[in-house]
Amino acid sequence: MGLERLKRLQGLMQDKNIVAALIMHPRDVFYYAGTAQPCNLVIPARGEPCLLIRRAEDCVRRETWVENLLVGGSLSHVKGVLTDLGITGGQLGVTEDNLPAAIYKKIAGTLAPLQPVNLSPLLLEQRMVKDAGEIRALRATANAFAAAHHTIMAQARPGVKEIELAGMVYSALRNLECEGISRNRRWDASLHSEGIICAGENTWQIAGHAMTITGVGLSNSLAWGPSAREMQKGEVLIIDLGFNRHGYHADISRTYVLGRATARQKEVFRAVKAIQDRVLALIRPNVAARDLYEESEKAAWETGYHDYFQGFGKMKGHYIGHGLGLELDEPPTIDPHTDIILQENMVLAIEPKLIIPDLGGFVLEDTLLVTADGYELLSTVPRTLFEIELT
Amino acid sequence: MGLERLKRLQGLMQDKNIVAALIMHPRDVFYYAGTAQPCNLVIPARGEPCLLIRRAEDCVRRETWVENLLVGGSLSHVKGVLTDLGITGGQLGVTEDNLPAAIYKKIAGTLAPLQPVNLSPLLLEQRMVKDAGEIRALRATANAFAAAHHTIMAQARPGVKEIELAGMVYSALRNLECEGISRNRRWDASLHSEGIICAGENTWQIAGHAMTITGVGLSNSLAWGPSAREMQKGEVLIIDLGFNRHGYHADISRTYVLGRATARQKEVFRAVKAIQDRVLALIRPNVAARDLYEESEKAAWETGYHDYFQGFGKMKGHYIGHGLGLELDEPPTIDPHTDIILQENMVLAIEPKLIIPDLGGFVLEDTLLVTADGYELLSTVPRTLFEIELT
Repeated sequence: MGLERLKRLQGLMQDKNIVAALIMHPRDVFYYAGTAQPCNLVIPARGEPCLLIRRAEDCVRRETWVENLLVGGSLSHVKGVLTDLGITGGQLGVTEDNLPAAIYKKIAGTLAPLQPVNLSPLLLEQRMVKDAGEIRALRATANAFAAAHHTIMAQARPGVKEIELAGMVYSALRNLECEGISRNRRWDASLHSEGIICAGENTWQIAGHAMTITGVGLSNSLAWGPSAREMQKGEVLIIDLGFNRHGYHADISRTYVLGRATARQKEVFRAVKAIQDRVLALIRPNVAARDLYEESEKAAWETGYHDYFQGFGKMKGHYIGHGLGLELDEPPTIDPHTDIILQENMVLAIEPKLIIPDLGGFVLEDTLLVTADGYELLSTVPRTLFEIELT
Repeated sequence: MGLERLKRLQGLMQDKNIVAALIMHPRDVFYYAGTAQPCNLVIPARGEPCLLIRRAEDCVRRETWVENLLVGGSLSHVKGVLTDLGITGGQLGVTEDNLPAAIYKKIAGTLAPLQPVNLSPLLLEQRMVKDAGEIRALRATANAFAAAHHTIMAQARPGVKEIELAGMVYSALRNLECEGISRNRRWDASLHSEGIICAGENTWQIAGHAMTITGVGLSNSLAWGPSAREMQKGEVLIIDLGFNRHGYHADISRTYVLGRATARQKEVFRAVKAIQDRVLALIRPNVAARDLYEESEKAAWETGYHDYFQGFGKMKGHYIGHGLGLELDEPPTIDPHTDIILQENMVLAIEPKLIIPDLGGFVLEDTLLVTADGYELLSTVPRTLFEIELT
């Protein structure tokens, strides 16, 4: 499968007149070479890719499917490999969204007259459609959410702090071989690997990290995520969990009430679910991502809660979901601006939320696989408002 | 204190003929403006800094000490602010080590004829010396290590998996308001927030992430950190914990034996401690970082274990420690190439290790504050080889 990924990228590069790609980010190297050890991967538009090993040769040899290996990962090694391939001019694809400026400038200087161009759109386009191995991995990640859910049902109680519950959820996920790190493509994003866990008044906090329920966190150094606040009886509690198992992410959210839910809480959750149902019903190949967003807007109006849909006031997001895989936030973004057409084997998260000050933030997010004629939910926990029994 | 940081940077900029700085990375904005919400900070070499708010205005107004605020964070807003300050040409400082190439190129295009230059060396030079608030924060972080240590003493047992212990350590740290994310300056680094926890044969694994005991992790997507391997009686167990509380990092490591330590294990640990003692004895203002490294080399030779000092064979590191603060890996790096002279109020981690195949990896790492006439250990757990009682 790995070698097919390389061939597919070579085809895309040929179409765009990119003579070679230089892949340096560990996650991007992992996708094309099967290892996240420090390596640089040179992919000519035609011919055999070469993996240049910066460190940990023994590990790389065990891990990669790339056959052509070379020890030494400096840019002069890269230049040597390109020269041997007869590549000395033209467009060189690099990932401009995750490569630091300092390295980019070194590449531009050392490899001139090769001209760096941004490879990331091609690479992310390719990654939108998952192969069989990736789908297996994504399914296993999504399955692990059940452990987070059961931990919340068993441990969330009045007096328990959000961070205490977060630690227990983390522990449950780690025992299922989840990583303690969630990955974002966006350079300035950062999320706790147990996701956003918050309750009560913190469920209608929207800090800057994204237009979503963020909670308030522990300090101004990262003012979102779980806080030291103790949960109270009757409060709404949410988990918005973007998490990573063996490199692949799922993004799943559920809403809870500490004790019996009120009629009003149930009504708002029904509205969230109605919005998600309407979007899910549209999902199949050949539908535009934008159409899913527009359906969610229409559905939100019909619930009567549009003022609180994806935020409120100045803090209102315009999206209903996103792709995910090796990173939590991959294309397509499902928003009013996205022309991308759904294809079989895309994996998407659909995440309506109603965030109502003085009542609560209610969210329902599921991770799903686009199938030949619809979709399959990879998240297995029921899509309902959960009442936590207080004993 | 925050305003003094801005003034100090302005002085450094004046010396280097940098007319203005544009700070965009959340961690760097946090240092100079007190908020990690999405903002861009414009600092003229002379005159009043302006914080441009990209999102979450209410949060930013609560969090920052910068008085001059403007809503709107696009580069044309930045250009407007610079123009109002009369700054239209000259050197513009940006952080080229953490700014993606795509953003750098937009800055260079939009703000021309201002010429971007790398501000990161100045910024990191300033951050080497901590102010009173930072020292308080660093002390609190280092104190929290005791919870990780007590968890290991209480929970590590034959049959427990490395990831299980990692989850318990994480939980203990989270309860003390530690963040679930450790920060690195290096663009391609990533560490679990419970650090490296591994035992037995995994303590002599050195994967590519750094020349240190890495363990083997859970998959090729991140082939270091805790694994699903069960610990065994008599094995060496280590924790190398780089962690973050309220934004500030400590880096502390301890070595354990599951049961009674053998004479050989004790002897190797004594050698590690002898190396650390020798380095610590040198620490005071006006000593060169390089001299600490050279002392560690000399001491390692004298122990007779130099072949295993900071790794073995091809996987041998040439360092004995590093600075830390808002990131785990700040200057100075304490290695043979670093001219930097120690100053009062630097915070350093000193981390000798002996990694001996088929015996174990032994590490002792402490975080300390350089004082007027020596140093103060911020890590409070005894510097000894711990024997975990098996009941």
